[in-house]
Parts: sequence; structure tokens; C-alpha cells
Amino acid sequence: GILERLDAGEIVIGDGGFVFALEKRGYVKAGPWTPEATVEHPEAVRQLHREFLRAGSSVLQTFTFYASEDKLENRGNYVAEKISCQKVNEAACDIAREVANEGDALVAGGVSQTPSYLNCKDKAEVKAVFRQQLDIFMKKNVDFLIAEYFEHVEEAVWAVEVLKESGKPVAATMCIGPDGDMHGIPPGECAVQLVKAGASIVGVNCHFDPDTSLETVKLMKEGLQAAKLKAHLMSQPLAFHTPDCGKQGFIDLPEFPFALEPRIVSRWDVQNYARKAYDLGIRYIGGCCGFEPYHIRAIAEELAPERGFFPEASEKHGSWGNSLSMHTKPWVRARARKEYWVNLKPASGRPYCPSMSKPDGWGVTKGSRELMQQKEATSEQQLKELFQKQKF
Amino acid sequence: GILERLDAGEIVIGDGGFVFALEKRGYVKAGPWTPEATVEHPEAVRQLHREFLRAGSSVLQTFTFYASEDKLENRGNYVAEKISCQKVNEAACDIAREVANEGDALVAGGVSQTPSYLNCKDKAEVKAVFRQQLDIFMKKNVDFLIAEYFEHVEEAVWAVEVLKESGKPVAATMCIGPDGDMHGIPPGECAVQLVKAGASIVGVNCHFDPDTSLETVKLMKEGLQAAKLKAHLMSQPLAFHTPDCGKQGFIDLPEFPFALEPRIVSRWDVQNYARKAYDLGIRYIGGCCGFEPYHIRAIAEELAPERGFFPEASEKHGSWGNSLSMHTKPWVRARARKEYWVNLKPASGRPYCPSMSKPDGWGVTKGSRELMQQKEATSEQQLKELFQKQKF
Amino acid sequence: GILERLDAGEIVIGDGGFVFALEKRGYVKAGPWTPEATVEHPEAVRQLHREFLRAGSSVLQTFTFYASEDKLENRGNYVAEKISCQKVNEAACDIAREVANEGDALVAGGVSQTPSYLNCKDKAEVKAVFRQQLDIFMKKNVDFLIAEYFEHVEEAVWAVEVLKESGKPVAATMCIGPDGDMHGIPPGECAVQLVKAGASIVGVNCHFDPDTSLETVKLMKEGLQAAKLKAHLMSQPLAFHTPDCGKQGFIDLPEFPFALEPRIVSRWDVQNYARKAYDLGIRYIGGCCGFEPYHIRAIAEELAPERGFFPEASEKHGSWGNSLSMHTKPWVRARARKEYWVNLKPASGRPYCPSMSKPDGWGVTKGSRELMQQKEATSEQQLKELFQKQKF
Amino acid sequence: GILERLDAGEIVIGDGGFVFALEKRGYVKAGPWTPEATVEHPEAVRQLHREFLRAGSSVLQTFTFYASEDKLENRGNYVAEKISCQKVNEAACDIAREVANEGDALVAGGVSQTPSYLNCKDKAEVKAVFRQQLDIFMKKNVDFLIAEYFEHVEEAVWAVEVLKESGKPVAATMCIGPDGDMHGIPPGECAVQLVKAGASIVGVNCHFDPDTSLETVKLMKEGLQAAKLKAHLMSQPLAFHTPDCGKQGFIDLPEFPFALEPRIVSRWDVQNYARKAYDLGIRYIGGCCGFEPYHIRAIAEELAPERGFFPEASEKHGSWGNSLSMHTKPWVRARARKEYWVNLKPASGRPYCPSMSKPDGWGVTKGSRELMQQKEATSEQQLKELFQKQKF
Repeated sequence: GILERLDAGEIVIGDGGFVFALEKRGYVKAGPWTPEATVEHPEAVRQLHREFLRAGSSVLQTFTFYASEDKLENRGNYVAEKISCQKVNEAACDIAREVANEGDALVAGGVSQTPSYLNCKDKAEVKAVFRQQLDIFMKKNVDFLIAEYFEHVEEAVWAVEVLKESGKPVAATMCIGPDGDMHGIPPGECAVQLVKAGASIVGVNCHFDPDTSLETVKLMKEGLQAAKLKAHLMSQPLAFHTPDCGKQGFIDLPEFPFALEPRIVSRWDVQNYARKAYDLGIRYIGGCCGFEPYHIRAIAEELAPERGFFPEASEKHGSWGNSLSMHTKPWVRARARKEYWVNLKPASGRPYCPSMSKPDGWGVTKGSRELMQQKEATSEQQLKELFQKQKF
Repeated sequence: GILERLDAGEIVIGDGGFVFALEKRGYVKAGPWTPEATVEHPEAVRQLHREFLRAGSSVLQTFTFYASEDKLENRGNYVAEKISCQKVNEAACDIAREVANEGDALVAGGVSQTPSYLNCKDKAEVKAVFRQQLDIFMKKNVDFLIAEYFEHVEEAVWAVEVLKESGKPVAATMCIGPDGDMHGIPPGECAVQLVKAGASIVGVNCHFDPDTSLETVKLMKEGLQAAKLKAHLMSQPLAFHTPDCGKQGFIDLPEFPFALEPRIVSRWDVQNYARKAYDLGIRYIGGCCGFEPYHIRAIAEELAPERGFFPEASEKHGSWGNSLSMHTKPWVRARARKEYWVNLKPASGRPYCPSMSKPDGWGVTKGSRELMQQKEATSEQQLKELFQKQKF
Repeated sequence: GILERLDAGEIVIGDGGFVFALEKRGYVKAGPWTPEATVEHPEAVRQLHREFLRAGSSVLQTFTFYASEDKLENRGNYVAEKISCQKVNEAACDIAREVANEGDALVAGGVSQTPSYLNCKDKAEVKAVFRQQLDIFMKKNVDFLIAEYFEHVEEAVWAVEVLKESGKPVAATMCIGPDGDMHGIPPGECAVQLVKAGASIVGVNCHFDPDTSLETVKLMKEGLQAAKLKAHLMSQPLAFHTPDCGKQGFIDLPEFPFALEPRIVSRWDVQNYARKAYDLGIRYIGGCCGFEPYHIRAIAEELAPERGFFPEASEKHGSWGNSLSMHTKPWVRARARKEYWVNLKPASGRPYCPSMSKPDGWGVTKGSRELMQQKEATSEQQLKELFQKQKF
Repeated sequence: GILERLDAGEIVIGDGGFVFALEKRGYVKAGPWTPEATVEHPEAVRQLHREFLRAGSSVLQTFTFYASEDKLENRGNYVAEKISCQKVNEAACDIAREVANEGDALVAGGVSQTPSYLNCKDKAEVKAVFRQQLDIFMKKNVDFLIAEYFEHVEEAVWAVEVLKESGKPVAATMCIGPDGDMHGIPPGECAVQLVKAGASIVGVNCHFDPDTSLETVKLMKEGLQAAKLKAHLMSQPLAFHTPDCGKQGFIDLPEFPFALEPRIVSRWDVQNYARKAYDLGIRYIGGCCGFEPYHIRAIAEELAPERGFFPEASEKHGSWGNSLSMHTKPWVRARARKEYWVNLKPASGRPYCPSMSKPDGWGVTKGSRELMQQKEATSEQQLKELFQKQKF
């Protein structure tokens, strides 16, 4: 089980970001970001799981991100109607388990934030949404549960409380930065609330780059220490550099989601992240949006000395570039060493572009009219109003 | 057939870069860059073919890049010994055909430049290497043939001559920029030699970004016009921005191959490229290293008006970002329009990095001692000498 | 008098940075940064005063920066011996008064931090150093006094106490950022101590860019309000962009002092600064290192509506670029408007350089062995040790 | 005389850019860029001459740039009417001679391109304009003559022919890049025409950065060699980095003229330029717009070994930063060496700005309606039309 591993001091490596990876492969739609590919194209989901397993993931998360009934039915995305929430979640569990059995991985069932919460539904209503997914996870007997990608700690606590009903271990991550949740509750306080609600593992996922995310987890750690609470720490940051983000993270950046390429982190950035995370005491180390299999492999390679083994995919990779000794060109063979890659400052090849952007920072949050969700598609009129606002 | 399509004025969309995509997925080793995954992990190769097909590729190239006997046996990469050249090539043909049959795609067998040529073997010897692959392509009955990734026109001509023996249509692309081949032969002259040798389609692939590659194809077109020769034009550039490259292309850039992330082109860059390629008269439009399925989809979406249809993968994509109208956050919904993405200058999020790099430019080419290849692994002593040279 | 003007709500415009401007003109040595040019080349000092007066400065500071006896005699700079501290200070007063009389400006005598303090001399000894300069200011009858460029509030307080003995109004500025003085005392607390010591005007000068400096003054303002103290606010920031600075300011940046060119602020940056300073309630607004006459003119032009008049030098300048309507080239005439310049993001023309640097951050401060000063020149051995340290 | 010096193999150091330096000091108006300061503020002009002399200039150019009758009367700049062309030119000669006599410098009278030429006046009319300035130079007995800042070789040749009538040595520089003059005449051909017209010294000034300018002079040198003509070479480039310029040089850059700060070259850039210019065989080495006294000093310091002496201003400067050994802070003392400054890649401190810009490139030249000049100020209506054009 996950807790046995962590309690024994083992390093648990998470997987990477499914919605972004599958969007690039053609199976997920940016905008709704829902996982109906589990039903529509199981072979594509299966293959991505396999790649993460091969890269070193100790946990395969069911591809159930945003797979709550209300989200599958939001803004003109009629997945619940066309496929059904149950089928999407069940297929996700089946695929994850199938691939996990090919190796030594655990399966984690995951829930994430809901339109219902944004629409100011009450506690019971929001909890019912989570419980619907939990029922499937229990039926499919996942190994543990993750409540992830929460911007408001109140909702995250509700999710943990529901998941905790199962008796299975619960991990909880928020997509927040050092400034805390959308209502200004600081990371340390968020962590305390989550642990009190029943989470055994807490941390952050998504929205910020590795460096910023580690800063946030550090604040969580300090909050827990001050409150004399114990929990394992977890980090699943973006694979994008976001030094210029505001409180809302990369969603606010003008490049989100279709021009983030120049921000993608290299494998060396990830090795650096893995080492820092380890030094900070984090033992559940993974990634989120942007993390491709080779990024996860970089975590596994960096921590191979501590773990005592390399992942399978390292057969096709030499530590710190040493496979380049097999390159045809002599000047590329000269790059077959750590010193070269550690010191390199990679150019963007974009001399007409800046290095940082001003985030949008509209500052709306739960309760703001513009954040209310709806079943029907965004209307032309609604879009027009947004375009207007964007300009000023 | 390919020529019927092109002669009829159809736009043919190529696929993207297998070695780079599969390196990131964990199945190809950077350095040797050889395609033994066709035998070791056919499911991974099959899935990538499927994604390109779904994204709009009209042609699936057999994953036989660098699959010549001598390359599978270079610098300590004992694939020929462990698996055999024949099996790698046969499996590649089988997989490509299997997926092509799932749609309406053609299968192209491909050969590329060889260590034998760099090692100054004579014409007959080099041709024998190509013929070994051709025999398999004929047995597996591919639809047409591609000689690609040649830095020296002399070797490319030899390849075309061999492929032409088959009676099948031959396409030929060189990985050169506007400065011409490694011996300084200009693009226009290269194109003329290739057509005279029997190629029906000529152009460039790899080594340079879309803008630079189009410049090169333009020079080829002008060379053919001046020589009163006719051929279809083809372009398969990198998905990396390389305004700072020298003659050798991205291989010379200090970021090659493990820190190219900030240079990755966006889907909007690709739409721009597809339009320019079309306007230049190119009708075989694809990509090379760095091109992921979503980049190929961008070509297909840009040229959908001319082609009259969208690719399957567009089900999960809205033209010019319109799927963002389904996003939860209002300021992201405000990005659901072409004007936004066309005008955006994406930041790199790397304020400590420059925008351009100085390429290595060692200037060695065929005949240079350091470019001689060998079966055994690069020795420690050889590496040490290269590290010395790198510093000065 | 200065206080009459400020009490009446008048905007007082300071002058710019003499040591940097005269270093570029060939009269000040970077390293010692001492003002012996007042004796050696009075015409050069006089001309610079005139340019600032013409640009709109309401105050001319005597060029007595670093003109304390101990600093004129530091590390092999034998000015005290060759010229004498008295002559340097007297000449500075004479020149400033001469030019001030050509207009309507006040003359301020200035003292700055001393080697004696860094060398851990006691309060009485350090005060004696300031008193030596003060005697000359009194003899030459300057209009008021400025204690500027202090990194340690303790020394600044001593300076204010000495200057206050004169009965003249005293202004005090520290070269600190939002993190406070070198011993970690926050800006608000620094301001409180300075006012309690007798300063009527407090603020910051040097070391940080306009934006950062305004942040610091804001903290000072809040500190004073919390302590229910009253004082006028003053800002004289750098004319260099320093978003990447640590606590020590631009001295820590690798570009200091000979490669700061790409960081120089434009006149439009300065107009922006002047407006923000005014809105923050600052009424003594000037500049420090890097501020050339045209930067001071930009303050005067931005605040011309509030002040009711333009400076003399605006005869040769049109507000917001309108003089460009007289340009020969039509596309330059098209730039004759505010909208153009406000929206421009100026390129550096340096595609191989980054936009930010990592500051040195050695973290030494008063009491650190390496900060002890000495009369004799830095020895070869001492330099060697520093070069060693720089590398690691 | 100038030719004796050059013939003897001496290195002649020119001065820097008066209009830009004095614009920043408050005495020249950007737009008209005319030198009436010689009459209005002789002390400011005198001081700048002194600074260049002190920095190492062997030649002081009369500040007669754009001082032709027709330019002093252009677009609402009524200098000819208010002061007179004669007085401006005479004062310029007197000031230059006065300062030259303080050292060992020569005085050069300079003429530059005219509105008359742009307005398609004929050869005789344009020559009359030059002759008016020449008469004053002869009366004031300057040492030699310079025809500088010509965009069209035709007009430059006319200027040389006029100046040659005097019997004095004539130097001629064009403000062109490697693409040649505004009508497309290549640099080599321009140089040949100028030498045939009577110039003893030819080269380039203004419009491009040092690297680009040296490239242009190299083409001129090759043109002269091919034509078997002999002449001394001269270069006076910008002190701004302009790798992104088109044919028209920095005038086309969006930053011209009020946001060029991030492009300013450092003293180390100038030392690099001076060395390259020397190695190319150029012996008249100076600067143009942006060159401040410390930039000229950098030329003199770089070439001190060849010249056998340092300029006076080096008293206040240590070669390659060695004066920093006198700095208070230890980490700045660690920068007291060449290796440090040669390797530094200076940051811009502007993470929201790009490194390169797209030049305007309107492509108008002599004969284009929009380039016709006029005595009266640009009207509101004319400006409006330009603003329109700028947007599209």
C-alpha cells in the first residue's frame, strides 16, 4: 500500500499530466479538458499509462480528472449525456489497473474540483458529486485515493472527507502557490485543514512550476510542524517555467494553453527539481500538466542512487546525456557529460519574444458572476462581453 | 498512388518526427537514434502512427530511419547483431501498413544517410547498403519510397538511383539550409541533381526551422525552373525555432538534443508555416523532429479550406482556439479567437536565458577524421579529446 | 528654504547622479568614486550642474559624495594627501552656489557613508568624520543638508545627529530596498529612527530601480504613519532596471559598474516613475546613478501640469515625442505621440544576452573581514583571493 | 595634416556623436537634430569637445551636422531665420578650434545630406548648398573636410566634388549598411565613386552598429581593391546594437530615437570594435550617435599598445576594469580584470521586452512623396495620415 511504502521511507514517483499529453496526441479537448478518451480511445490512454510506468511511475492515477458528473456536462460538453459519467470512470479504472499489473505500480482513484462548488452549491450537494466517483473507485477497488487540483481549501476538505469514508488512504493536493488558496488562506493553514480532514499525504499539483511549487510545499510543511501534525508530502508541479505567475498560476498567463511551448522544462530542470524535492523531505514526487514520460524518467534517474535502481525506460537513455557518446557527430559526442548540461542556458530561438509575461489577473473567484458554470455552451453574446473585457 | 494525388493537385500531408517523439516516450535512444522499437515495442510505434493518421497524415513513413545495416552497428549500438537489420525493417513495414489500412494513407519506405558514406566507402558499397533496405520495402510492397536526411547530395543521388531501380515513385529530401550541402553545393543545384537521378518529388527535411526550410525549398524551386525541370516540392522541417543556426542546422546548436524545449514551435507557428508552404507551391507538407501529432493537425486545419475536410483529431480541437469557449475560467474563454493567438508573442519563462545561441560550427564533413564512424563504442580517450576540443 | 517649499506643497526636483555621469565624461574614477574633479576639472562639474538646473532641478547637491577624509584616502586613492579633503569640499560648494545663482535652485551639502564605520570605529570617531565636512558646509552657507547613501541605519542616524547640530534642515536617504538595511532593519523602522534623530525629509537613494525604490519609500511611509511621525518623503533611485537585485542592490549585479548600459531607463520609464512617486505622496523627486539631465527633464515634464511650468531644457524637447513631427523621415514623424512611446517594449539588440542576472550575493556586511577598508592599495595577493572566491 | 598622419601609419581617433549626446544634455532637439547650440549654448558644445579631446580624439569635427541652410529651415525649425546659417557654422568652427588648440587635435569641417537632394533639386542647386558651408570652413581655415551621413551615393559624390574645390583633404562617409545605398548601389561601388570624386578617406558613419559597419567597410575595401584604387578607410558607427536593422539602419527601428537605451554598447563592446577595425586595416576609427566620451576612450585604450600612449582621461580609468581594485566591496574588487568583462553577457533587466525588434521598413527613398521636405511645420493632417499608415 501507499502508506506502507512511504512510512518505510521509500520514494514514490507519481505520473505526469494526462490532459496535456493527450491533447497533443489528439484525444483530449482543451477547454473542457475531460477524459472521455477512456471510452473513446482506450488504446491511447493505455499507451500513455505504459509510458509512465516504463519511465518509473510507482503510481498510476486513473484518468478521471474532471470526470465528475457536473463537469462532464458543462458549457456544451455533453459527455455525461453521450457516454455517461459512470462509463468514463469505470473505463479509467480498468485501464489503469490493466497497465499497473504489467509492473509494480499502485492505482490511485482521483477526484478534482467541481463546477458545483463554483456555482455555490452547498456542502451536501458538492459531496454527493464526489461520492458518485468514489462509488466507482470502490467497486473497482483502487489502491488509494487522491483529491487533487483544488483552488479552494474548503472544497478540498469536503472532498477529503468524502474519500475518507472509504477507509482507504487519501492524498490531497491543491493547485495553489505560496500566496495560498483563492480566498487567501495560506498554504500552511490549507495543509493543516487537509490533514485534520483525514489526508495522510498533502501537497500541491499543477498551476506552478517546480521551483514555485516546492516553495509552497515548504510552507505547508512548516504549517504542519507548527501545528504538530504529521503527514507525508507530495508535489506534482507543472513542466512549464512560470516565474511570472500571479496567484492563479499558469491559467492566468497569456500563453495558456496553446503557446506554452517555450516554457517547457528540460529533463535537466526536472532532475534539479527531483533533487530539491527530495532534500525538502518530499517523498511522493511526480508531475502534472506538461510532464511527459521523459520528465518522469528524469525524476527516477536523479533519485536512482537513493532508490537503488533505474526505470525500464533508462535502457534508452544514458544518465546526464552519456548516450550521446554514440552520436555520429563529434561535437555532439562532446556533450556526453553532466557538466555540459548543468551549465547550459538554453536559448528560445525567439528573439522577438520576451522572457516573461504579465498574467491576466482578473481576480475572479468562487462567487464571482463570471465564474458561474452552465450546462449549455457559452453563447456568442457571452463571448463578446469577454472579448471586450480582455481588451481593457 | 502518391504521384496521382500530387498530379491531381491534392495536398499531401506528411507525418512528424518519430525518433524525437519516441525518445520522449522512452523507446528511442538519443545518440544512435535507431528504430529497433519496431521490434522491441511495436505497440508504441503503432500508437504514434495512429496519432499522426488521426491528425491528418496522408502518408505513413515506415519507421526505418537510420535502419541501414551499418548504422544499426555503429559506435557500440549492436542492434544488427542483437535483432538484425532485416527484422527491424520488416516490422516497420508491417506496422505502418497495419495502421495505414485503418484509414486512407499511403505507406512510404524510407532510407537515410549512412556511416558508410562518411567512412568514404565507394559508390557500389554505399548503394549496396541502400539496396538491402529496398529489398525489404519491395517484399512488403510499400506504396512509394523516400530518400531523406541527406547532408551530401552525392550520397542522396546514389540513394535515389538505387530506389529508382524499383520502379516505384521516389521522393528525395535533404537536411540542408539555404547555404547548401556540406560541400557547399547550393540547394538549386542539389534539386536538379536529384531530379535528374530520378526523384519525382524533392525538398528538404529536418535540421532547420519552418521559415529557413521554406527559404531552401524556394531556392530548389528556382534551380529547377532555371534548369527547366519539373518535380513536386516537399518540406518536412523541424518543430524548433532555429534562427541562429549555421550550415549544419540544429545539430550545431548547443541545446541539441536535450535542451531544445524553449524552441518548440506552437500550433500557430505551424499554421503559419503550412500557409506559407502552400503559397510557395509546395504540396507535400509535413514535419520532422519535434513535430508531434498536434503539429500535424495544425497543418491539416490550416489547409482544411483547400482540402475540403478536417482531420479526425479535430474533433478534439477547435480551429484557432475556439474550444476555449468551453473553459471554466472567463479570461481563458476570452482567448477563444484567432486574433488573440496570431498576435501573441509567447514568453519563455526563462529570464536567465538568452534568445539565441552561438552554434558550435566545428565545420567537419565527409572525409574529416573526426567524422569517421566505427562499430565499437566511443572510447574514454576519444571522448576526452572531444571534451578538450569543446572547450576551445 | 527647502522646508518652506515642501510645506507649501511644492514639488521639489532633485538632480541626477554625478559620479556615474562624470565617469562617462572622463572625470571620475570607477572604484574609488571620489569627487576630486571639483578641484581638478571645475568646468566639467559646473557644466553638469548647469545641465541639471536647465533640466529642472530645484536643488543642486554639492558634489561631495564620498568626500569624507577617510574615503579620500582609501585603497590607494591618495586624494586627501594630494589635494586635501577641505579643498575638494570647498570647491564643490563654490561651484554649486555659482550655478544655483544662475537660476532659482537651492544648494544642499551632502555627506555619505564612511569607511570608518565599516572599519568598526566608534560613534565619536565616525561623527568626527561627518563634522569635518559639515564645518565646510556651514562656512560656505549651504541652504540645507543631506545625509545620503547609507546602508546601515545606525550610521545614518549618527550622520543626521551631526548635521542636525547645524540648525539647518536635514534630509536623509538610505540606499536600501524593501528588505531593509544591511543588518535587516526594515525600511519603516529605518525611517522612524531617522526622523527621531532629526531628519525632516526621509527616503531612499541609489542601489535600486525606480519601481523597487518606490516600494521601499512606501514601507517607510507606512512605518512613519504607524509611529505617528511626520516627515516629507524623498526618492532618488537609479536609472537602471534592477528587477533581479538582492538586498545589496545593483552593486551585486554582475554588470556593475561597467556593463549596465542595457539596463538604462528611458525617459518614458522616468515619466512613469515621476507620476507614481507623486501619487505615493513623495514631493522631493530626483535621481541617482545613471540619471542624466534628460531623465531629470522627464520628471519635470511629467509633473509640469502640477507645477505649472516646463523646465528650460524643454525648449529642446517636445512632450511625449512631439518634436519628432519635425523629423525628415515620415515613419519617424509617425512616432510623434504618447501612445506610441507608452506601449513600446524596447528591444535590447542583444539576442545572446539574458534579461536578468543572478546577483553575487556574497552577503558580507559591516564587521565582515572582507569589508574592512585600508589606506594602501589592494595588494595582488588580496586580489588573487577575491578572484578565487568569485569562481565558487 | 590628416593625410600625413594616416600616410605615416598613425591611428587617427575620431570623436563621438554630438547630436545624441547634446540631446541628452538638453541642447539639441530630436526631430530637427540641428546644431544651433553652437550659438545658443557654446559652453555646452565646448565642454563636449573637451571631453572627446581628453578621451583621445585626434580630430574634432565642427558641430555643423545638418547645418545647411535648407535643413536649418525645415519643417518648422526656423533656425536660419532666427540665427542664420552663417552664425551657426562660424561659431562651430571657432569652438572646435579653441578646444583643438588645447591639445594636439585637428579640426574637420563637416557637411551632411540635404533636404534639397530629397526634394529632387538638381546638381547645381544641391552643390550650392554645400558651397555655402564650405565658404565658412575656408574662412575659418579648418584642417580638412568631411562629407558624412549620406544615404545616396549620388549626393555624396556631389558633396565631395564641392569640398574638393577647396584643395583640402576630403573624407567621405556614408550611413549605409552591407546592402548599399538607398538606391541599391553596393558599398564597394559607392567607395569607388567617392574616391574617383576626390575623397582620400572613405568609409561609413552612423545608422548601424560596429559589427555591421565593419562588414560594410570591408565591402568598400574589397570594391577599391578590385578597382585598383587607394584610399584610407574610416569607420564611425553607432554606439547601439542593431542586429535587427534593415537597409535604413536604426532610423527604422521602433526604438528610434527615444528608447534606444537597452541597445547602448558597453566600453568592452567598443574595445572589441576598435581591435576588429584595426585588424581590418581601418586607421580612422571613431564613433557616431550614442558614442559618449568613455566610448572614445575605450578605442584609445584598446589601441594604446599600437599608439604608444594612453589618453588623458585614462587617468580616471583603469584598463579592463583594474580601477575596481579600489572599490569598497570585495566582490566588486573581484571584477578588476579583463577575463571577467570579456566573458560577461550583460542582462537588460527588462524581462517583458524582447531582444530584437522588427524594423518599420517603409521603404521610401528620394523621390517618394512622403520624403519631400518643407519649410513649414508638419500639419496635423499630415501627422494623422502618418499615424494611420503606422498602424497597418
